[in-house]
Amino acid sequence: MKIAVLGFGTVGAGIHEMLQKAEGLEPGPVWVRRGKADEAWKTDDFDRILADPSIDAVAEAIGGTDPAYGLAKRTLESGRHFVTANKMLVAEYGLELQKIADRSGAAFLFSAACGGGVPLLHNLALARRGDEIVSVKGILNGTTNYMLDRMQTEGLGYEEALKQAQALGYAEADPSADVSGLDALRKIRLASAVAFGILPDGCLHEGIENVSAEDIRFYQSKGLVLRLIAKAARTEEGVSAHVEPVLFARNAAEAAVSLNNNLAVYEGRFCGRIGLSGQGAGRYPTASAVIRDLESILSGARRMLPEKTVRAAADNGSEKYRCYLRLTEAFAGLFPGAERLEQSTADGSLRLLTKPLPADRMHAAAAEIRKKGGCISFAALEE
Amino acid sequence: MKIAVLGFGTVGAGIHEMLQKAEGLEPGPVWVRRGKADEAWKTDDFDRILADPSIDAVAEAIGGTDPAYGLAKRTLESGRHFVTANKMLVAEYGLELQKIADRSGAAFLFSAACGGGVPLLHNLALARRGDEIVSVKGILNGTTNYMLDRMQTEGLGYEEALKQAQALGYAEADPSADVSGLDALRKIRLASAVAFGILPDGCLHEGIENVSAEDIRFYQSKGLVLRLIAKAARTEEGVSAHVEPVLFARNAAEAAVSLNNNLAVYEGRFCGRIGLSGQGAGRYPTASAVIRDLESILSGARRMLPEKTVRAAADNGSEKYRCYLRLTEAFAGLFPGAERLEQSTADGSLRLLTKPLPADRMHAAAAEIRKKGGCISFAALEE
Repeated sequence: MKIAVLGFGTVGAGIHEMLQKAEGLEPGPVWVRRGKADEAWKTDDFDRILADPSIDAVAEAIGGTDPAYGLAKRTLESGRHFVTANKMLVAEYGLELQKIADRSGAAFLFSAACGGGVPLLHNLALARRGDEIVSVKGILNGTTNYMLDRMQTEGLGYEEALKQAQALGYAEADPSADVSGLDALRKIRLASAVAFGILPDGCLHEGIENVSAEDIRFYQSKGLVLRLIAKAARTEEGVSAHVEPVLFARNAAEAAVSLNNNLAVYEGRFCGRIGLSGQGAGRYPTASAVIRDLESILSGARRMLPEKTVRAAADNGSEKYRCYLRLTEAFAGLFPGAERLEQSTADGSLRLLTKPLPADRMHAAAAEIRKKGGCISFAALEE
Repeated sequence: MKIAVLGFGTVGAGIHEMLQKAEGLEPGPVWVRRGKADEAWKTDDFDRILADPSIDAVAEAIGGTDPAYGLAKRTLESGRHFVTANKMLVAEYGLELQKIADRSGAAFLFSAACGGGVPLLHNLALARRGDEIVSVKGILNGTTNYMLDRMQTEGLGYEEALKQAQALGYAEADPSADVSGLDALRKIRLASAVAFGILPDGCLHEGIENVSAEDIRFYQSKGLVLRLIAKAARTEEGVSAHVEPVLFARNAAEAAVSLNNNLAVYEGRFCGRIGLSGQGAGRYPTASAVIRDLESILSGARRMLPEKTVRAAADNGSEKYRCYLRLTEAFAGLFPGAERLEQSTADGSLRLLTKPLPADRMHAAAAEIRKKGGCISFAALEE
């Protein structure tokens, strides 16, 4: 099977390199932006790829939705298989692209868009057909895991941890998509689509920007380890989907995820809890996920989205958790029945442990407090 | 796709139940031993299954090699797909069954034979085609992990831990295959066949029978956690394959594997280290692995053994590790340069930390000491 690669950045170059050796796969031309085709095997003319009957599949690693969306559409309309590492593309246009693939009989796979090298989506897609998936959750952003790991093992503050992550190339110059939890949220939305056939909208994300070195010391004094967790689960109304800092016991598998590693755990009614870990980003881990998708096309795989997958508003009102809070004292009344723990020394704010409350209530309260000029840092308790 | 199930014990009944709901799969008759066909959908006549053209596949959960081998052969010769949870069958006859499957075009898959519900073999088979697998290792026996976990968290001795495991149904009345490491070795041999195309013979296994409560306390005093690890790796000469107790730092992923859970980790040149965890045994986890194999046949999968897989003697002379030893003092000279740590109180034996030595030297020394009436307990250091 001959594969054209779109994009020759970090991931695209990795895919092109791995194609040289992969069983049954063969590298075709690499598409690059206008004027960047500086080698005979590169082209900036997508029509040439579509006109070449020897090309069976296209692997996309451009990122963003323009021109990726147009090229994806044209690839699938031509009956060629399309594999992508692009979570924005799939979250935005995945359902539409699946319909085109269904019509033309082409494969549409996107393992690398969620969890990088961690084989989450592929396994979810297989498991859900014979089992009933109850939940999918995990550490899906390596940048923030690296930062939290440094904060907890070296006592670094948020800013220092961010600088270290940037120096190592784990965080971008503008880290906002990572540290706000948005990147992890995009990934868990795709996992939800694959596991439940529902691509949830209106999901909630709290990142790690409000986690201080003092918060970490407090959690450590309770024997707890902090991780940024993305979670999607079946509810009576549909699916929940949210991202927030979560506290684990020191002997939990999540606590053992160091540096920029990822860990995803899905739970099936029959199979129980299955954990999958590895590198969530980087040239070769991400490229290896693309290559696995291509190999599984060779074995006959055609889709990972269930038939009749729909978009629907997330239901974040059912699942409840207790949270540790540090907040401006004036807002303590928003959490009736919460246990008062200590007066935080640095800024005089309070620490509370709430009663179990729904995820949407917790996120809404945090938004309200910040809107009114107050401070809040929260972390859910895994129990 | 209609599936006949062979055997109606714990796993067979689980498969039959899951088939009622799995997408694209349909339960056929269940084959049981002569005289046990007490329901209309059971039969003790395998000819009836072969004579039924509506049956596309057979899922075997009898265990052992007789009559499983004969039934497997006849299934594959008839062109029907064959899926099994039977590690003895695959270790003994897998290469021969694969040849029959190749001739008839049928699928031959055996995910459930290694790791139970943990999707190790399926992922290895996919990964190895586009990557170069360097090693596969992990906690592949839930019984011994449960026992080691109890010994380390509750301070139980070996005998008490075994009794608890038996009371919970995790260990059999005759636990020797589990506690000797033989069960884990059988599984890692299958993983080696899938990852490297080499089914290794002459492998080494040290179990947990010689691990005392005092050993555990000593390891804990060094901040180390003990696990029984099966490992296969590429070497210059072929592949290594051995099982032994291994010591990990407290924050290692292996240390977080509690109770009777399993964790397998494979390392690829490109994908890096991928971890897979879950329940390694039990009705539904094992049945769910069989169902995943059947679903992947529906998507086009036909094999997990690489073409030209061979049997070959394991090469356990290349890989080296340091070991903690407790041994009868008279045999200390077998480990030149080893560091003397303490005189063990209970029986006056010595504790040593060896220099790095090859796995086959360590296992041979232990066999020699025991043959001569001495005692030894050893654990390799993960470094």
